[in-house]
Amino acid sequence: MKNLTRRDFSLTLGKGLIATSLLGSSNLACATEVGNQKKKLGVALVGLGSYSTYQLAPALLDTEHCYLAGIVTGTPEKESIWKDKYAIPHSNIYNYANFDSIINNADIDIIYVVLPNSMHADFCIRAAKAGKHVICEKPMAVSVAECDAIIDACKKANVKLSVGYRMQSDPYTNEVKKFVRERTFGEVHFVSSDAGYISQGNPDQWRLNRELSGGGALMNMGVYSIQTSIYGAGGNPISVTAQEFSTRPEYFKETDETITAQFEFVNGAVAQMFTSHNANGNRLKCHCANGWFELDPAHSYGPISGRTSNGNVISFSHQSQQALQMDDFAKHILLGNPNIAPGEMGKRDMIIVEAIYKSIAEGGKKQNLDLGEMGIVS
Amino acid sequence: MKNLTRRDFSLTLGKGLIATSLLGSSNLACATEVGNQKKKLGVALVGLGSYSTYQLAPALLDTEHCYLAGIVTGTPEKESIWKDKYAIPHSNIYNYANFDSIINNADIDIIYVVLPNSMHADFCIRAAKAGKHVICEKPMAVSVAECDAIIDACKKANVKLSVGYRMQSDPYTNEVKKFVRERTFGEVHFVSSDAGYISQGNPDQWRLNRELSGGGALMNMGVYSIQTSIYGAGGNPISVTAQEFSTRPEYFKETDETITAQFEFVNGAVAQMFTSHNANGNRLKCHCANGWFELDPAHSYGPISGRTSNGNVISFSHQSQQALQMDDFAKHILLGNPNIAPGEMGKRDMIIVEAIYKSIAEGGKKQNLDLGEMGIVS
Repeated sequence: MKNLTRRDFSLTLGKGLIATSLLGSSNLACATEVGNQKKKLGVALVGLGSYSTYQLAPALLDTEHCYLAGIVTGTPEKESIWKDKYAIPHSNIYNYANFDSIINNADIDIIYVVLPNSMHADFCIRAAKAGKHVICEKPMAVSVAECDAIIDACKKANVKLSVGYRMQSDPYTNEVKKFVRERTFGEVHFVSSDAGYISQGNPDQWRLNRELSGGGALMNMGVYSIQTSIYGAGGNPISVTAQEFSTRPEYFKETDETITAQFEFVNGAVAQMFTSHNANGNRLKCHCANGWFELDPAHSYGPISGRTSNGNVISFSHQSQQALQMDDFAKHILLGNPNIAPGEMGKRDMIIVEAIYKSIAEGGKKQNLDLGEMGIVS
Repeated sequence: MKNLTRRDFSLTLGKGLIATSLLGSSNLACATEVGNQKKKLGVALVGLGSYSTYQLAPALLDTEHCYLAGIVTGTPEKESIWKDKYAIPHSNIYNYANFDSIINNADIDIIYVVLPNSMHADFCIRAAKAGKHVICEKPMAVSVAECDAIIDACKKANVKLSVGYRMQSDPYTNEVKKFVRERTFGEVHFVSSDAGYISQGNPDQWRLNRELSGGGALMNMGVYSIQTSIYGAGGNPISVTAQEFSTRPEYFKETDETITAQFEFVNGAVAQMFTSHNANGNRLKCHCANGWFELDPAHSYGPISGRTSNGNVISFSHQSQQALQMDDFAKHILLGNPNIAPGEMGKRDMIIVEAIYKSIAEGGKKQNLDLGEMGIVS
């Protein structure tokens, strides 16, 4: 079998290699019941690209409530490497052809889908149908309709669903949320959020392929800026306007290079975001009635760094965001703790992503949003 | 005579108190010729509001090439206070009724117009007709047409003209310009500029009166963000889009409260600016190919504070920006040094201001700009 990397998915998608139907989907196996004695939940990573390799798998060595129990990969060479490195039993190793048989594997409680964006919905839905709890890497999907389909599938299968929003588990994020909630510096008036990096790598990478990514900078780093704008302002936006900029169309052939957007909030706050695959940016600053607070860097794997207008440094001992995130989800499943990054949060962000693209398509026209409290977790 | 403050101008403008015609305007008195032996140029401040009182007059005690020689005020009480405090001869004190007779005063070389924005053009033109060099406080005027009229009047009168862009004389600004010019951190990709404060004062202040101010946050603090966006990116923008936000319409009855704008530059850089009378913001950050630099605070009277991605702090001993600015203009007149804030710079910024308002009026539509090198001083 050909080595199957995330980059190759575009070649295989049309060839029927990945089965999208699932026999026996009504035969749900719910491996973990609340209150059972199982100490650690078993996680299977689907897609062993750099994020799984360098972030998630190492993080799963640090987690208290879950561990790396299985893998799903299209690259046979990775099977043996990961098997040895993480002591994964052969029976917990899947490829994309036999993925659906994971339904029968009691070692796997959570399936973490770390595939290109356009494949999230298919694999999350199949994971749910296999009776497994689901973590869907961000962005949740490439459309609101797909987010709905994932949410519906998880509800029907009675499994838990969260989005891979590592920042929601980060103590710096929660300190910001606390400042906003408790009005430590007064009411927030202005939020500025930047999230970007300079992409100069392989022009065939899936992030530059619209069919796989669903979009460019906005779908990748922009989602962080949407998130920080929301927790920086303390609520969902009520409108958005947006603009797109392009300077390297020969490289960014299909996907957005740079996008700016502006949000209005019901409390009167205004947020301005910048995201790019052609410029760096990694910051959240909130100006309030009586002062300000800032994270810079704000969106990277850490350590995050923060400061406030009263001269304080915001500082927490560094922990793997991914470990915190997966443990938070495991505690949601095991202990009934709140789901701090539920599917509704991913859906809300995709509604905003779609509104941003619509505003751009309509020449910067304001798009009103009617999100209510969707996805808000205090 | 009634005490005449800047706030009162709205009341007097329609009553013929201020003469706008000028007899004898062709009889130009050019008090200072390049190469003469006069050591310090005499400056007359027109309008003795807080900026003249707390910034310009004290700065003129520190200037090397100019000094406070005269005042123009509508408030008789201020005449005696200023006369005593700054040892101004009675013959160098004018009011708005006798202002034009300043043409006959050889002590006055420079007239610095520090009146509400809508009065800049009238008084700058009259100053030029009186044969005096002109400093016009920012924003230069309330329309491009007025900027043209000021520039033309100064050309015809063969007097020098500059705009009160104190930041152009600040060493931090010039360090930023040097970073950009010398590509110290590589090509600039993304510029972020914020300039705002929370206005909660007297609702009758002239800045909230459209007839006097010509606009709100954009005309006031926004001009700084336009300036920093331009020297942060290293050239004039080729397009702009903009949005307006309002949360306190009962206070900001006539003028813009918060405006965001986005610029494209010919080198591919993108800038995002925020200005407000309802939120704080005081920052310039430039993300380049190989690093970043930041001023925060960036637009205040100082000391400015800066840092770079290589861990360096940008630091200069603090000097009055206004003293540096007025000395720079005096040296332009006396020594032929470059005019670092010429009228064309003020006009260019007003073209951008008008384009921003037009973009807002057209629902955020992109406005192309054809500025060439207008107002660029390296």
